[in-house]
Amino acid sequence: MMSKGQLIVISGPSGAGKGTVCKAILEKNNFWVSVSATTRSPRKDEIDGINYYFITKEEFLQKIEKDDFLEYAEVYGNFYGTPKSEVLKVLDSGRDVILEIDIQGALKVKTAYPNGLFIFILPPSMEELKNRITNRGSETPESLITRFTSAHKEISFVSKYDYAVVNDTVSIACLKIKSIIIAERCRVDRMNGDFLKEEIINE
Amino acid sequence: MMSKGQLIVISGPSGAGKGTVCKAILEKNNFWVSVSATTRSPRKDEIDGINYYFITKEEFLQKIEKDDFLEYAEVYGNFYGTPKSEVLKVLDSGRDVILEIDIQGALKVKTAYPNGLFIFILPPSMEELKNRITNRGSETPESLITRFTSAHKEISFVSKYDYAVVNDTVSIACLKIKSIIIAERCRVDRMNGDFLKEEIINE
Repeated sequence: MMSKGQLIVISGPSGAGKGTVCKAILEKNNFWVSVSATTRSPRKDEIDGINYYFITKEEFLQKIEKDDFLEYAEVYGNFYGTPKSEVLKVLDSGRDVILEIDIQGALKVKTAYPNGLFIFILPPSMEELKNRITNRGSETPESLITRFTSAHKEISFVSKYDYAVVNDTVSIACLKIKSIIIAERCRVDRMNGDFLKEEIINE
Repeated sequence: MMSKGQLIVISGPSGAGKGTVCKAILEKNNFWVSVSATTRSPRKDEIDGINYYFITKEEFLQKIEKDDFLEYAEVYGNFYGTPKSEVLKVLDSGRDVILEIDIQGALKVKTAYPNGLFIFILPPSMEELKNRITNRGSETPESLITRFTSAHKEISFVSKYDYAVVNDTVSIACLKIKSIIIAERCRVDRMNGDFLKEEIINE
């Protein structure tokens, strides 16, 4: 076993369904999920402290000043950020942490934590991506076009990730993500010899 | 999907239980397993063409001459080898191939096919390894000591492998191996852009 938890970053373009996939994974597995802070308005049914910490722009800027974010980004005019100290505390305790964040944020985390596990969620097709963004119903026609164009561009960032999972069927996407997490724990280059020391050399 | 099958090499020291694990995996999954050729005598219940192709030393040397092996090695005075042409044919057809081979053989395959997936099966402890080799009952006291000493040394080769799986409980070891195989298919650096081409860019 590794002494520290694994940082698992689940990311992908808007409309790929990373939120749905993460929710399904968390229902059956005991991961700790980081709640992001944002300056955008809550969507219908979103709860402060559960979906996001909804804070003002002033509060957000103060947190940036205090180096309180693992990463932060401005997306479509709103700020999003991952609180740093709580993520690091959970990882140090040995528990795995899942971050569900946008691509800009994920790439920043990758620069700071290259040993994280970076999983890119892909929509089954561009047509399906368009349908999903449209059906969400929370976008204006302008923001819809912005999101779709951006998603198209964002897909090219898949090459910066360790793994890519097509979210065609949610249950299969979840199985793949779970497999990736299990497999990563078996990777020899992640073990740093700890594995042998603890599990084999204890004669 | 990748156009070619994945070569999966399952290896490990004598007594780690790679045979048991492979058998359990194959019961539930549709992999193609290469049958090795050997010059050693069949153990009780071993069937020619199923467990091994049991051939004479002369036949084996002829096959070496004809470059008929993917790898071959001499272990405890006997030759073992993996028939080359049939493995390559199955991989070309897009089907995954499992090779269950000893460490010497696996390292030779790795040199020739670095893109193969190399999984090392570890015993839960050295004590358990000793018990397993002893309980097999097919060894003389001398070959038992040779095997145990060799297994001890062989464990250090884990660093040459991609993944290590402790065979404590067979069903959990199988789940881990299956997860590794699923995860590898999601690895971005194995996809060479095929993934996007086929599954995303088909608008």
